[in-house]
Amino acid sequence: MNNEYIDKVEVKLISKPENMLKTLYTACRTCYSNKSPVEIYNEIEDNKDKMLNLITKVIASGHYSTIEHIQISYAISGISRACSHQLVRHRHMSFSQKSQRYVEEKGQFKYIIPKTIEKNEQLLKKFNSFMETTSKFYREMVEFGIKPEDARSILPNATSTSMIASLNLRELIHLCHLRLCTRAQDEIREMTQQMVNCLIEVEPWLNPYLVPKCEKLGFCDEHKSCGRKPTLNKQE
Amino acid sequence: MNNEYIDKVEVKLISKPENMLKTLYTACRTCYSNKSPVEIYNEIEDNKDKMLNLITKVIASGHYSTIEHIQISYAISGISRACSHQLVRHRHMSFSQKSQRYVEEKGQFKYIIPKTIEKNEQLLKKFNSFMETTSKFYREMVEFGIKPEDARSILPNATSTSMIASLNLRELIHLCHLRLCTRAQDEIREMTQQMVNCLIEVEPWLNPYLVPKCEKLGFCDEHKSCGRKPTLNKQE
Amino acid sequence: MNNEYIDKVEVKLISKPENMLKTLYTACRTCYSNKSPVEIYNEIEDNKDKMLNLITKVIASGHYSTIEHIQISYAISGISRACSHQLVRHRHMSFSQKSQRYVEEKGQFKYIIPKTIEKNEQLLKKFNSFMETTSKFYREMVEFGIKPEDARSILPNATSTSMIASLNLRELIHLCHLRLCTRAQDEIREMTQQMVNCLIEVEPWLNPYLVPKCEKLGFCDEHKSCGRKPTLNKQE
Amino acid sequence: MNNEYIDKVEVKLISKPENMLKTLYTACRTCYSNKSPVEIYNEIEDNKDKMLNLITKVIASGHYSTIEHIQISYAISGISRACSHQLVRHRHMSFSQKSQRYVEEKGQFKYIIPKTIEKNEQLLKKFNSFMETTSKFYREMVEFGIKPEDARSILPNATSTSMIASLNLRELIHLCHLRLCTRAQDEIREMTQQMVNCLIEVEPWLNPYLVPKCEKLGFCDEHKSCGRKPTLNKQE
Repeated sequence: MNNEYIDKVEVKLISKPENMLKTLYTACRTCYSNKSPVEIYNEIEDNKDKMLNLITKVIASGHYSTIEHIQISYAISGISRACSHQLVRHRHMSFSQKSQRYVEEKGQFKYIIPKTIEKNEQLLKKFNSFMETTSKFYREMVEFGIKPEDARSILPNATSTSMIASLNLRELIHLCHLRLCTRAQDEIREMTQQMVNCLIEVEPWLNPYLVPKCEKLGFCDEHKSCGRKPTLNKQE
Repeated sequence: MNNEYIDKVEVKLISKPENMLKTLYTACRTCYSNKSPVEIYNEIEDNKDKMLNLITKVIASGHYSTIEHIQISYAISGISRACSHQLVRHRHMSFSQKSQRYVEEKGQFKYIIPKTIEKNEQLLKKFNSFMETTSKFYREMVEFGIKPEDARSILPNATSTSMIASLNLRELIHLCHLRLCTRAQDEIREMTQQMVNCLIEVEPWLNPYLVPKCEKLGFCDEHKSCGRKPTLNKQE
Repeated sequence: MNNEYIDKVEVKLISKPENMLKTLYTACRTCYSNKSPVEIYNEIEDNKDKMLNLITKVIASGHYSTIEHIQISYAISGISRACSHQLVRHRHMSFSQKSQRYVEEKGQFKYIIPKTIEKNEQLLKKFNSFMETTSKFYREMVEFGIKPEDARSILPNATSTSMIASLNLRELIHLCHLRLCTRAQDEIREMTQQMVNCLIEVEPWLNPYLVPKCEKLGFCDEHKSCGRKPTLNKQE
Repeated sequence: MNNEYIDKVEVKLISKPENMLKTLYTACRTCYSNKSPVEIYNEIEDNKDKMLNLITKVIASGHYSTIEHIQISYAISGISRACSHQLVRHRHMSFSQKSQRYVEEKGQFKYIIPKTIEKNEQLLKKFNSFMETTSKFYREMVEFGIKPEDARSILPNATSTSMIASLNLRELIHLCHLRLCTRAQDEIREMTQQMVNCLIEVEPWLNPYLVPKCEKLGFCDEHKSCGRKPTLNKQE
């Protein structure tokens, strides 16, 4: 079994708004000002400190509608179809995902190995060999004339997929609240963390908001806490 | 291989609003009346013909916001995870789906067989045997101590799933426009048709609206038509 | 000035799902069960305690997607256009509102008086007289041939409006979090409280969740607290 | 009456994605390719013709989910509160609007005059004078101690407002379908046309899609046609 078929999540930020801070600042001020948004936009002149001062106050107050004006697009590859099935449940996001109906897997399909299986040499060997067998049966069906959309019915959750995913800052914060939580599955946590890392690199001021929900709440509202924050007595 | 593991889509309408027609009628009239909605609601007195006369005019004019007031809940079982991955892309719907993370498959998991594979005796035999092998490997991993959330990485797209799905009439019309189209995959078409059938049984007047998009448009806007309606020249 | 033109908010619950608790319970259990939703639905047999025990646990854990299956419709009248402009900003709600374009105000239009103005006898008198003058100018324009859609440009924010509004339980909780907050304006708070009251009357178990956001958070995340809950130091 | 208080709609595009075409192209190809999105993104090298060739095919086929990746932000000013009440009904848009609760009108508030009233000299005079009277009563209440949030209850629909509004291309096409229709009110048609014009200036290839719905349908689905396209017999 060749390693090239073993895939790993990779996230790249491919697009963000041209005038991220100015757009955010203008949106925040428009709500509370007698000036027109164009005046506000023209006056601010890239004064970054002044802009961030207002923007971070508004976000801290939970007035999240303002940050919807910023939409970010990511290229995501090397996630399993199990992970993508979880991800597309975020209904405020936009997705363009590789189609298993229209894209035929020409050779061995790529797949993702869960860490707990990777750790165990014997299971790992069986896992890789299972993927090989599956790939052969898939190819057999396609060569027999079964369409990829039907042959794919044997492809496992581990099969690698890729997509362009776009979301606004409000939804990104929500995604982090849920998917950076210890309760989320490994793979989607890692993917979300990579999404955060890409963005923080260019917009480091966003760091304090891109956290699991317990950091916002100050407590854990799940049935059991992972230990990061305590649960509330009233909820036990 | 026992037939009991071969699953088929089954849809049951489990909930709709108590006062479907009266709610719809009141919503339609409220927009164009000086009377209060409560007056309108009380005056109509279950006059079904009068209610339907107004409601169908409003729907025919494409004023779909009114029909959002009607939400319907379905119990859906016996669809593949491939089908559910398509279905949850409908972002105006609400879903509660059986979790592969938390629900362990105790024996042979149930699965759906695509029709094109079912037709071929030899492939079908291999397909069933593949499912048996997969189930054994899944059980082996779980018994070894791998959590279901990771062991499920080998479960195929064909694995059966179930869910409660709710949507309003506007989204149901949209679902039909896309998923009753010949271009949609067999399984989701059949599921959507069953959703329609359940509802038409109790609300037959909805029949003309729960159709593929070409019936609304009068033409096919896909790249190639299935023949039901012609494409427009200007789009070719 | 006749009192009959002075309007007050009135909310009536006009529709909810036929099987509210059973639908919710089945949705909650489907996620964690090997049984099909129809089996779960049939087995529970209206055991209210058992149903509520599970449902309230799920809501307390913040797993709000389940409660989207319950949509409720309200008839709302006697709110100002200022209030309706705030309300329609809730984008997960569905609205059918009385149109000022198509519904002509035949006599004195109804209006809502803010409490702070109502309290002052002198201002109140001027306020009522202002509404009379406005109504006369509106009628003059309409009689001259100006369409209601243009004549309404002089109608004030205080003008009464009515609507059918539908929302699911998740959005109702969100509405309460924002609009029962002391920071919300009087009128929309009162309207929201009436929405809650109507529902609590028939589903009293929902009472603990239909509260301002500080009750969920345990603290106030606004810039200044009204005193109900303290703000967090880290946010000051 | 000074003309400076008479406001007119003004729209300025203030932000769009950095890599509009490349993002769109990559999204379109990701669905149908075995290449990873990053490979696709890197390979295309700003070949505009090749990108547009694919993108326009996808849009023509009605596969609108791809164009959600492009979000555009506009600064809008000089629209009436009647118009903004219509606009915020577009629930896929994001808005940051000037608050009448928190922004006090210090002098004569700005307002929009409907064209049908502007045309009639006598009505226009009365209209302007009505605005002056209203402004004086507003100021009187504020000076008496009434908060702007309550004093604004007398401000008319004609009062000018401003906002930052963001929407993706899919919603922009939907907005045009509804609001460029002859049936839409003058003011929102003009605002929408300005939104289109700003965008077409930098992305002229979008022109054929930013049209009233009858241009997409080939017929008018309203009760009565304006004459631009005929209605369908079956709907009459």
